[in-house]
Amino acid sequence: MANWDLWPVHSFVDGLVAAGVRQAVISPGSRNTPLTLAFAEQSDVQVYTHMDERSAGFFALGLAKSTNAPVVLCCTSGTATANYYPAVMEAFEARVPLIVVTADRPHQLRDVGANQAVRQPGMYAAHVKWALEMPVPDGSVGIARHAAAMAARAAAVALASPCGPVHINYPFVEPLLPPLRTDLDASHRVPVPKLYGPVGSEPSTEAVERLLAALRRAKRPLFVLGPQPSARLARAVRAFCDDEGIPWFADVLSQARFAGEVPSTAQVTHYDMLLLAAGNKAPVPDLVVRFGAQPTSKSLGGFFQRMSGRAQVFVVDTTEWYRDASLVATDVIAGDELALVRRLKSQSLDRRAEWQGHLQWWRRADEAIGAQIGAFTEEHWFEGSALRSLVDALPADAQLFIGNSRPIRDLDALVNPARAPLLLFGNRGVSGIDGIVSTAFGIAAGGRSHPTVLCVGDVSFYHDLNGLLAARRFDVPLTVLLIHNDGGGIFQHLSQAERKDALEYFTTPHGLDFEEITRAYGGVFTRVGDAAQLKQAVRQATGQPNGLQVIEVRFENAESAALYGKLRSLTQDAIQAVVQ
Amino acid sequence: MANWDLWPVHSFVDGLVAAGVRQAVISPGSRNTPLTLAFAEQSDVQVYTHMDERSAGFFALGLAKSTNAPVVLCCTSGTATANYYPAVMEAFEARVPLIVVTADRPHQLRDVGANQAVRQPGMYAAHVKWALEMPVPDGSVGIARHAAAMAARAAAVALASPCGPVHINYPFVEPLLPPLRTDLDASHRVPVPKLYGPVGSEPSTEAVERLLAALRRAKRPLFVLGPQPSARLARAVRAFCDDEGIPWFADVLSQARFAGEVPSTAQVTHYDMLLLAAGNKAPVPDLVVRFGAQPTSKSLGGFFQRMSGRAQVFVVDTTEWYRDASLVATDVIAGDELALVRRLKSQSLDRRAEWQGHLQWWRRADEAIGAQIGAFTEEHWFEGSALRSLVDALPADAQLFIGNSRPIRDLDALVNPARAPLLLFGNRGVSGIDGIVSTAFGIAAGGRSHPTVLCVGDVSFYHDLNGLLAARRFDVPLTVLLIHNDGGGIFQHLSQAERKDALEYFTTPHGLDFEEITRAYGGVFTRVGDAAQLKQAVRQATGQPNGLQVIEVRFENAESAALYGKLRSLTQDAIQAVVQ
Repeated sequence: MANWDLWPVHSFVDGLVAAGVRQAVISPGSRNTPLTLAFAEQSDVQVYTHMDERSAGFFALGLAKSTNAPVVLCCTSGTATANYYPAVMEAFEARVPLIVVTADRPHQLRDVGANQAVRQPGMYAAHVKWALEMPVPDGSVGIARHAAAMAARAAAVALASPCGPVHINYPFVEPLLPPLRTDLDASHRVPVPKLYGPVGSEPSTEAVERLLAALRRAKRPLFVLGPQPSARLARAVRAFCDDEGIPWFADVLSQARFAGEVPSTAQVTHYDMLLLAAGNKAPVPDLVVRFGAQPTSKSLGGFFQRMSGRAQVFVVDTTEWYRDASLVATDVIAGDELALVRRLKSQSLDRRAEWQGHLQWWRRADEAIGAQIGAFTEEHWFEGSALRSLVDALPADAQLFIGNSRPIRDLDALVNPARAPLLLFGNRGVSGIDGIVSTAFGIAAGGRSHPTVLCVGDVSFYHDLNGLLAARRFDVPLTVLLIHNDGGGIFQHLSQAERKDALEYFTTPHGLDFEEITRAYGGVFTRVGDAAQLKQAVRQATGQPNGLQVIEVRFENAESAALYGKLRSLTQDAIQAVVQ
Repeated sequence: MANWDLWPVHSFVDGLVAAGVRQAVISPGSRNTPLTLAFAEQSDVQVYTHMDERSAGFFALGLAKSTNAPVVLCCTSGTATANYYPAVMEAFEARVPLIVVTADRPHQLRDVGANQAVRQPGMYAAHVKWALEMPVPDGSVGIARHAAAMAARAAAVALASPCGPVHINYPFVEPLLPPLRTDLDASHRVPVPKLYGPVGSEPSTEAVERLLAALRRAKRPLFVLGPQPSARLARAVRAFCDDEGIPWFADVLSQARFAGEVPSTAQVTHYDMLLLAAGNKAPVPDLVVRFGAQPTSKSLGGFFQRMSGRAQVFVVDTTEWYRDASLVATDVIAGDELALVRRLKSQSLDRRAEWQGHLQWWRRADEAIGAQIGAFTEEHWFEGSALRSLVDALPADAQLFIGNSRPIRDLDALVNPARAPLLLFGNRGVSGIDGIVSTAFGIAAGGRSHPTVLCVGDVSFYHDLNGLLAARRFDVPLTVLLIHNDGGGIFQHLSQAERKDALEYFTTPHGLDFEEITRAYGGVFTRVGDAAQLKQAVRQATGQPNGLQVIEVRFENAESAALYGKLRSLTQDAIQAVVQ
């Protein structure tokens, strides 16, 4: 059924062209891949790409003003769409024909705590002439006809007097590259999660008993602590799992990974690489208890998928508004998480011996993977080694704000627990690459008694260069470790890398010299080239915190991609001994 | 009745403090002046100011994350509010307590084409936990009690689990500094404009006849052409007014000010300074015909106010969605403006002789003011002389994009018609200072056969520095005349200047060296210090357009303010001879 030639997104772009669209401004992203490719392949449309969506919006506004023709603005899902808002307002009030096409996650990933999923339908409120939600393309002729018709209507509405912006929200399912396939299978069973509401702010007794019963029954239990801010909850989960002998995963932002304590006896640190290496050979648990927001690790997301129908999955969240982007929860417990763990601890489970083998498998696998990563990051100099050096060099109680896209994934996957306790921060509500510098300054200003370090990629850093003004205006010290691979390194690791012909629309090389820019904002700039230099620079910057300090480390995208491939293959070898 | 001590905005801030707010991030602006002052005077609140609202939003997010307390974000009306949207989304999804307070224009200035007025109530759609529209403060105890209660509730809602952002939209009337007064007067008559809908896209015959009858009756007619993009409409209005002997005003963005034609025999060029100088002595017309968007000139806005009840005011607009921020329209004609002017021209009015004295008054006054401005800008070097030098030096058919805040007001007020025809652009739909650089690049990319020049103030330039990346990515040549007075010069000219104790919250000195930043984006930077250098630099940059060229001219705020004061007093002297 699915057919690239019939793919509705091409019909959508054809509809725009038929209605007079000749120019599109695309903000490089992942979710809008189908649209980006369709525009790239349509020779009648001139495509501009612009990294900062706010600038892109106004650039499109200028194009439309100058040519008196409707101009398409197209971005990925999440906060990218909000960055268009100033230009949308201006276009509405100034009567300029813009066609704003926001790619979106499909309905099943909204309001469940998934990454970069916000409430895009109707998000421009009364500042557009029309707002339309498209159906997910399914490769059928009917959907293609609808797409063409709606595209032409969008251009017509934008141009109708008084001219103005229109908004089309376009949801896409993965894979984002052709051929599309439909995942619908009649044999699938759809579980309906059982929700246990809180009593006051506490979890209900019924819920606690249900969970205790499940624990007493379980053969292969697993605890997962996602991103969350409470060090107390992190300590309580750790103590419970260590006491009971339950393997547990802690997200990079869980406050349980860099807590500077004596090593846990049950924690699986390198689960991201472990799951990637083990693939189908990792033993699927029969009981999962998950706390906090959706974890960062993609391979853990895949592991959750494999649990569907095979494990009882408890999601514990403060309120009924729980987060489960993997859609595998069987039971949801709403209420204070710390209270729940304390009530679990007050009961004696005494199943340590039965779970011994299960725990040992995970511990042995973790050790094997950890040793491999350790040796590899010692031997090679790449993003992973830079992040390990950073964590090594940070003083106790430093606040570490970790940027989105690559840095947080690398920190999650490749870095050992810190010897000194760190406070971890990130923007994972929507996981945007915007505003990272400013958020870090805000954190530094709010916690002035701690040294604060931001680790950020070059695209995020560029996106919020304006945020550097805070250094001068507020006298807030901040150290920035800038991981510079000249734009969009993450796409080399995603499926878009397969489309070499269109890679220019995804990677975002900018050629900027951040040394000059740092100087313009009154900062001190240092470029480092190896682990020793990096550690020394970080120690120096955080030891005498004073103004803005930018430490830049550069990597070549292609080299890094090759090293990652090599490391993956080595970890696969390492896991074999454990699996067999 | 009005009383600063009782002023509800203080109660609003007291309510926030009572509910635990200790930090506020304020984006400097005008409409939020009452809030800014109330926060500045409340010693329990630490105030941060941040110029780029997008960065400010994320900075506040970081503060709230770090302190686990609700943080206020506060900005002026218009696109500023939209720049908060990315951080609002992140706060909603990451459960961070933010209290977003957007100042707004009052209801009577919304949807009428007024500056910086957008549809703020509900603008964050489903990304806030609560959205509230406040009443305009009137100094009464009841309104003050309401403000305190709503402020406390806002903090409570933001903190309630799950935490998240709330939105309070706060409308204010001018004057924005205490004491507030109410303008309500029982003797006022409220005129209801008569609307003539279009027939197809043409103005109705009834409307044309009504206007012709009014013209045949009028003793002191006046035509006003506001911002609009059509050179044909500009030529038609000019030809009609010159033929009939009707004085006419043309806004800086009307395409009739820098059209490079032989001088008009009826145009009043310097109406902004003329009306300011003449005050109540300018003869109020009995018939006004206005085209296009709301004009830029503030003194013309005041002149419109004086017409209320004394003149028949026709507003001509493409559709029924007409723009009249002054609220003085008596008759609205919807339909194609050019068609209307042609139908007027096809009739013989033949009232030239009767209108002779009226036309002569305006022409003589214009000449006197024009001579005074000419001599003054020759003698002194300030923003006005820089803009005149720029227009002098531009080649024919150049696209000139004029930035908001000071530059467009100075161009409107102080610059003579150009000898060579220019295409004028601005962002006056919402008149934001955001996205100016990117819009100019879009215009340059859309009209590559023309040299394109952007004239912009330093705050606007900073706000969209990221837009400079377009120079490298798209190979679009752009010349920028950067008028640098280190932030917020416009506030020296507004009433906020009276409050010296709080001026730091309005002016926005940044101390940035734009030379380094320009170089980082691959541009060529030139600093000029007088008219001859400026003209030479502009001629050179536009003569061989190649990449990004930034020409910076610096002025001292205090000096400029003194020169403007002197010029105003000289024009007042000059107008006396004409008035008497």
